[in-house]
Amino acid sequence: MATDRFSQWLGIELLEIAKGYCRLEMKIREDMTNGFGIAHGGISFSVADSALAFASNAGGRKSLSIETSISHLVRLQVGDCLLAEAQCEAETDKLGHYQIKLYKKNEAEIPVALFKGMVYRTSTIWE
Amino acid sequence: MATDRFSQWLGIELLEIAKGYCRLEMKIREDMTNGFGIAHGGISFSVADSALAFASNAGGRKSLSIETSISHLVRLQVGDCLLAEAQCEAETDKLGHYQIKLYKKNEAEIPVALFKGMVYRTSTIWE
Amino acid sequence: MATDRFSQWLGIELLEIAKGYCRLEMKIREDMTNGFGIAHGGISFSVADSALAFASNAGGRKSLSIETSISHLVRLQVGDCLLAEAQCEAETDKLGHYQIKLYKKNEAEIPVALFKGMVYRTSTIWE
Amino acid sequence: MATDRFSQWLGIELLEIAKGYCRLEMKIREDMTNGFGIAHGGISFSVADSALAFASNAGGRKSLSIETSISHLVRLQVGDCLLAEAQCEAETDKLGHYQIKLYKKNEAEIPVALFKGMVYRTSTIWE
Repeated sequence: MATDRFSQWLGIELLEIAKGYCRLEMKIREDMTNGFGIAHGGISFSVADSALAFASNAGGRKSLSIETSISHLVRLQVGDCLLAEAQCEAETDKLGHYQIKLYKKNEAEIPVALFKGMVYRTSTIWE
Repeated sequence: MATDRFSQWLGIELLEIAKGYCRLEMKIREDMTNGFGIAHGGISFSVADSALAFASNAGGRKSLSIETSISHLVRLQVGDCLLAEAQCEAETDKLGHYQIKLYKKNEAEIPVALFKGMVYRTSTIWE
Repeated sequence: MATDRFSQWLGIELLEIAKGYCRLEMKIREDMTNGFGIAHGGISFSVADSALAFASNAGGRKSLSIETSISHLVRLQVGDCLLAEAQCEAETDKLGHYQIKLYKKNEAEIPVALFKGMVYRTSTIWE
Repeated sequence: MATDRFSQWLGIELLEIAKGYCRLEMKIREDMTNGFGIAHGGISFSVADSALAFASNAGGRKSLSIETSISHLVRLQVGDCLLAEAQCEAETDKLGHYQIKLYKKNEAEIPVALFKGMVYRTSTIWE
């Protein structure tokens, strides 16, 4: 996070991190909107992708995203506070499979987007 | 594009647009990198997602992304110029299916990422 | 299930069904293998797709699969008994989002495949 | 194909094969239908997955599917003759990315399903 320039631009605040898990939040700003005046699809993707990176690298091995998908369920407005929760679902020697659920902070029962990510687990160990 | 704040931040330049098609480019900057010093996965996703929005809305009907996925093949560095080409692959009354290929501008034969997007075609017609 | 010819061929046994949920099992047979002598990828997909159909149609509205994906984690052998559990993750008026996890019956903690499915919820109501 | 029992059950006929490419056909039968009387989603998936296996293994290295997705566009009826065309879109040392398009044989301009597949390229070389 300290060297992740784009996550800093997104205004991501890390709430909790553990092996294969993380929870973070950020706020939708005016400069994150698309031509429809709602949050650009790339914003919720990026927040989820950061959550994937933090959770998968917390396990000790350098891990790189290779395939990810997102379903957008609810449109996000400027001012919405977004919560992302990443959870490892399964792991083999080389691959890790994660689900990231996105919520509005004040409606934490209804997902606004569902993200699935697969990472390649390199043999590089974090110090 | 004129009102798409985040695409403006990304520095997207629209090269060509037609019904179900578009081609655009942008350049990777320092503030788009992640903790590994390469482009954040959300950047290539966002560029492809903008290409999807422009191509699918060029058809006359307001179209919203509902499900998208991206495979990252090659890491992108600061200074790399990214080309995105969106193409409609199939369309039903309600849904449009697109593929977006991303290239480095000076290596336009080798995709750096492959993006697939499905849009919901609303009944709203653009003026 | 009574009229689902292919699910019958697969030997699917429905264990539990409720609104947005189902659990079923089946056994891998010789005629389900591919050229590598392990279960064809289409078999685990089909079992998960049936689980998606049963769970999403149990809600009262006729629902059709529009976009699905599967990650294969563990190879399946002839004789393996496969458990599938489908769970609705989120629902809007028109779309339902499901996750289906596949396990070996005697190793029900380690997923062998992860399946994600999106259904279109028609306005037709089951009697 | 000679030892692929499930592809045989599907009635797949291989029309053309080359490095990273294949084209095949098959016919929808009564025992391939679901509870709605149309082809089970697992059938078109399985046909595409076989096409992926044939095309990716034609390159010389044993290749295993790790992540695949399918979008169903048009419902398939008993008697429909299905054409599948697999094409490699990009390849790195370890991974291959393919697109498989499915058509009805007599309507070969309109895809009935779009399939995306990623394979892991092992170091095992076919004799």
